[in-house]
Amino acid sequence: MASHGFWFMGAENPAGDGSQSPNTPRAWCQAAAQKFSGGIGSKLCALLNVGEAEKAAQASVKAEDESTAESCACNKPCNCSKATVGFSDLYSTDLLPALDGDAKTLNFLQEVVDILLAYIVESFDRSTKVIDFHYPNELLQRNNWELSDEPETLDDILISCRATLKYAIKTAHPRYFNQLSTGLDMVGLAADWLTSTANTNMFTYEVAPVFVLLEYVTLKKMREIIGWQDGRGDGIFSPGGAISNMYAMLLARYKMFPEVKEKGMSSVPRLVAFTSEHSHFSIKKGAAALGIGTESVICIKADERGKMIPSDLERRIIEAKQKGYVPFFVSATAGTTVYGAFDPLIAIADICKKHEIWMHVDGAWGGSLLMSRKHRWKLNGVERANSMTWNPHKMMAVPLQCSALLVREEGLMQSCNQMQACYLFQQDKHYDLSYDTGDKALQCGRHVDIFKLWLMWRAKGTIGFESQIDKCLELSEYLYNKIKDREGYEMVFDGKPQHTNVCFWYLPPGVRNLEDKVEKTKRLHKVAPVIKARMMEYGTTMVGYQPQGDKVNFFRMVISNPAATFEDIDFLIEEIERLGQDL
Amino acid sequence: MASHGFWFMGAENPAGDGSQSPNTPRAWCQAAAQKFSGGIGSKLCALLNVGEAEKAAQASVKAEDESTAESCACNKPCNCSKATVGFSDLYSTDLLPALDGDAKTLNFLQEVVDILLAYIVESFDRSTKVIDFHYPNELLQRNNWELSDEPETLDDILISCRATLKYAIKTAHPRYFNQLSTGLDMVGLAADWLTSTANTNMFTYEVAPVFVLLEYVTLKKMREIIGWQDGRGDGIFSPGGAISNMYAMLLARYKMFPEVKEKGMSSVPRLVAFTSEHSHFSIKKGAAALGIGTESVICIKADERGKMIPSDLERRIIEAKQKGYVPFFVSATAGTTVYGAFDPLIAIADICKKHEIWMHVDGAWGGSLLMSRKHRWKLNGVERANSMTWNPHKMMAVPLQCSALLVREEGLMQSCNQMQACYLFQQDKHYDLSYDTGDKALQCGRHVDIFKLWLMWRAKGTIGFESQIDKCLELSEYLYNKIKDREGYEMVFDGKPQHTNVCFWYLPPGVRNLEDKVEKTKRLHKVAPVIKARMMEYGTTMVGYQPQGDKVNFFRMVISNPAATFEDIDFLIEEIERLGQDL
Repeated sequence: MASHGFWFMGAENPAGDGSQSPNTPRAWCQAAAQKFSGGIGSKLCALLNVGEAEKAAQASVKAEDESTAESCACNKPCNCSKATVGFSDLYSTDLLPALDGDAKTLNFLQEVVDILLAYIVESFDRSTKVIDFHYPNELLQRNNWELSDEPETLDDILISCRATLKYAIKTAHPRYFNQLSTGLDMVGLAADWLTSTANTNMFTYEVAPVFVLLEYVTLKKMREIIGWQDGRGDGIFSPGGAISNMYAMLLARYKMFPEVKEKGMSSVPRLVAFTSEHSHFSIKKGAAALGIGTESVICIKADERGKMIPSDLERRIIEAKQKGYVPFFVSATAGTTVYGAFDPLIAIADICKKHEIWMHVDGAWGGSLLMSRKHRWKLNGVERANSMTWNPHKMMAVPLQCSALLVREEGLMQSCNQMQACYLFQQDKHYDLSYDTGDKALQCGRHVDIFKLWLMWRAKGTIGFESQIDKCLELSEYLYNKIKDREGYEMVFDGKPQHTNVCFWYLPPGVRNLEDKVEKTKRLHKVAPVIKARMMEYGTTMVGYQPQGDKVNFFRMVISNPAATFEDIDFLIEEIERLGQDL
Repeated sequence: MASHGFWFMGAENPAGDGSQSPNTPRAWCQAAAQKFSGGIGSKLCALLNVGEAEKAAQASVKAEDESTAESCACNKPCNCSKATVGFSDLYSTDLLPALDGDAKTLNFLQEVVDILLAYIVESFDRSTKVIDFHYPNELLQRNNWELSDEPETLDDILISCRATLKYAIKTAHPRYFNQLSTGLDMVGLAADWLTSTANTNMFTYEVAPVFVLLEYVTLKKMREIIGWQDGRGDGIFSPGGAISNMYAMLLARYKMFPEVKEKGMSSVPRLVAFTSEHSHFSIKKGAAALGIGTESVICIKADERGKMIPSDLERRIIEAKQKGYVPFFVSATAGTTVYGAFDPLIAIADICKKHEIWMHVDGAWGGSLLMSRKHRWKLNGVERANSMTWNPHKMMAVPLQCSALLVREEGLMQSCNQMQACYLFQQDKHYDLSYDTGDKALQCGRHVDIFKLWLMWRAKGTIGFESQIDKCLELSEYLYNKIKDREGYEMVFDGKPQHTNVCFWYLPPGVRNLEDKVEKTKRLHKVAPVIKARMMEYGTTMVGYQPQGDKVNFFRMVISNPAATFEDIDFLIEEIERLGQDL
């Protein structure tokens, strides 16, 4: 492993936990053969040896990787040489729709699936790396990624698949905590494979009959859970929380000034929106895009836990009105990105009602707590909102992307966004046109994001999501309790986390006792980036960090990965200390 | 098959082409067993019988479907009963990350894959239906689609997968022509399965190292093909052409008035955009969303072939300036949605240069012709554009979604859209931050849309895409030549199609000879919807129709499906005549 700068020096090898080195497929193969009996044993064994074949392929590409690709030591029925058979003379033109392409297609797709299955099993194995990190320029050179005029063989395609996964981040890994979206759900994955195979578009019922119905069923269920009467209202699955929030702002503007659709912003008075200083950057991004301008997004003060202060909200609304501006949109956050704070929705709803302002709840991160009887009180008041963003791809671990915008008023999305293109939304079709939902979207073609959520919901039931979410919150509380009084740790804010965000500084021994406060802060600011870089170099775990306001870089631990356990939390702490002790 | 209204009456059964009825898995199974030898034969046989198991499952759900699920007549090694084994006692909680969940996970995912493989083989088989159509209310009742508190077994999950595919539209079917995106590419599909498995986000290099690099490589290649020097410039893969077009408008506005980002539209003069009357509705949708307003989109006249008339463009620009408006954006279309027309880009570029207006080319549909040496002249002048939308998910048959926005100026997207969120785009990371491309997006999380395009490009080479595109254009010319002088057909516009769009009326005998022109037009308007509805009822093929301006409903045939052949075009014509002769 090469060293890249000062931050790598000094750290020891990963604490020996008895795990095997991740790159010994032979040892793996043997372990797998012992672990399982019958067909699965040999299948797994063969799958795991794909990694070996890949290394052999890599070796031929990259001389510096001169690992000797040993032949497998397994006994029959292990079919370890399969990866080297059959595809070197075949091209994509030999696959379907080619005449008699059926068999070759099945062979090829099965080969790809075997690569994927091996990757999945590996991803959940704690003895493997979360990431095999390489710098961009280095990674560009480690494989041939170029596009050319001539086709490559299917063998090359399989090599590319293996190489892509080799350098990918294992988002399913139980120690991957880097983002709000982590983990890999097996039913969700199956559903996403099916979605890819169905390869259709959400704009009309005629091309997506089942998916359109499932979106209808699921959005209704989500609205029921929010607490809107009989699940009435509207909604859409959009490409991510930022776009969902933008939809909400668009609807709020249109609701107040419907003429804006035809006449633009020049026809309306100066609009202002409100959100807390801890809210997601997409509120400002949306305001910039919609021609409202970032300066018209007024940031409301948050308390020390990151929650919007309602009195400050009302003060700023009144202030804006006095200036002649028109407050049209308040975005409360249910689960802020860094602190995981829940804005006080009831107080905010009272203010919005009083001043007749559209209340949006950005629950991209925290909305899923509605699924938990234990934690849903944190969103009390959400039922009074006009709209809500809720991303099942975060806390519910649905594969990316899956973001819903829910809207209380029926019909508003349609009138706000429709353009009635006659080649898509013909009015003389023979079925109920209310199922042609495409015209209420900003997009024309819209990816099918519903099936993975729907199928997971079927598989888990609401109570399954609930227990998954409760477990993540339990883990975060465990982490909080473990470090709040531990030597070398300092919490960014006091008190039990409301969501799974645990924000903390780790102070290495050399920083811990510094007298000079300025020097101490300066040194502390550099600690998290170095530890994070080392984590990536070792590939043992990954966790986010950032500064916030006047607070220097701190770790933001978030847990949405259903694979994580108490032991993984313990490991994280040990790893931070191991990698940071010399700083 | 039930009848639903007048439009179904009168049509005969599908013309006997010797094909089997789509719902006889037993016959299929036997045919498959004969067709292949060895492992693949039995595998295929087993796969095809999944359909039978599904029917059995369905029968238990829905009494009206009382088909007797015959047992398979195949001899060993056919494993036809497999679908009924094993999953009725298992739940999603038995799968990974459950302890010892490996084997169950592999079994479950393999079972899903088997369902998908069977569906794929079926989809390419012309003897199967394009769609097994049911009305929304009927479809809601044909299965249990409801979500509940309690989990379902994995058996139920597999049944749901089969039911979903049973009622899905087979977008891979060689006779599916309904949309601009048709077909299913096997390498693209494999890539999408891998993408789902990698389950990551495009915002930073640290969580998507390979995908970020591949996006870089591919966008550069696309810019080279456009003709921008050394492939320089910028770009992004966005969730569809409508959003790509919106990005372009956003950039054009920001380029002219950067203060709009902070201050909004109230800080700028009245802006106007120009596009042809045949352009895509997303230009107006974008203008509505961005606060510009649909009235500020000036529709330029198109000639009888649907191409923008440059003299009208210049006239309207001058007119707008005289009114004190500021022209900021011209969206030329390369491949209009209905006619497939290519606006004259060189003349438009001259006008844009003279008046210093951002020139955008909406090549969502026609941009892919740049890959064809024979057809790329239709986009001559595109190299002078400031931005271009190009959707590989249409004419290049990349799985949905895959839409690129290409921008000539470097750095503009970043400054236009960035919000510098410190928890995502930390400035003190240890790698080259220029690869953290997320902040130039409107989205925060962004789905990985690049891998399927990149892998297909590897597999086909540029020449592979070229021949695929050339073949579709050849088919459309064949269709044009076949019907232009055929009795009962009338072309919507004269001359060889420029893209694969062939627009025509079919006049049934009863309409053909009507003297009363008003009555004839009125009757003709109803012909296409009825034929289309019957096509869906029989499931034999699907093609779009619409009115345009003062022209009553006509068929818009488009060919982007690489599986289509001359015989499929012949079939379409026969089918239109068969289904429409009594009208």
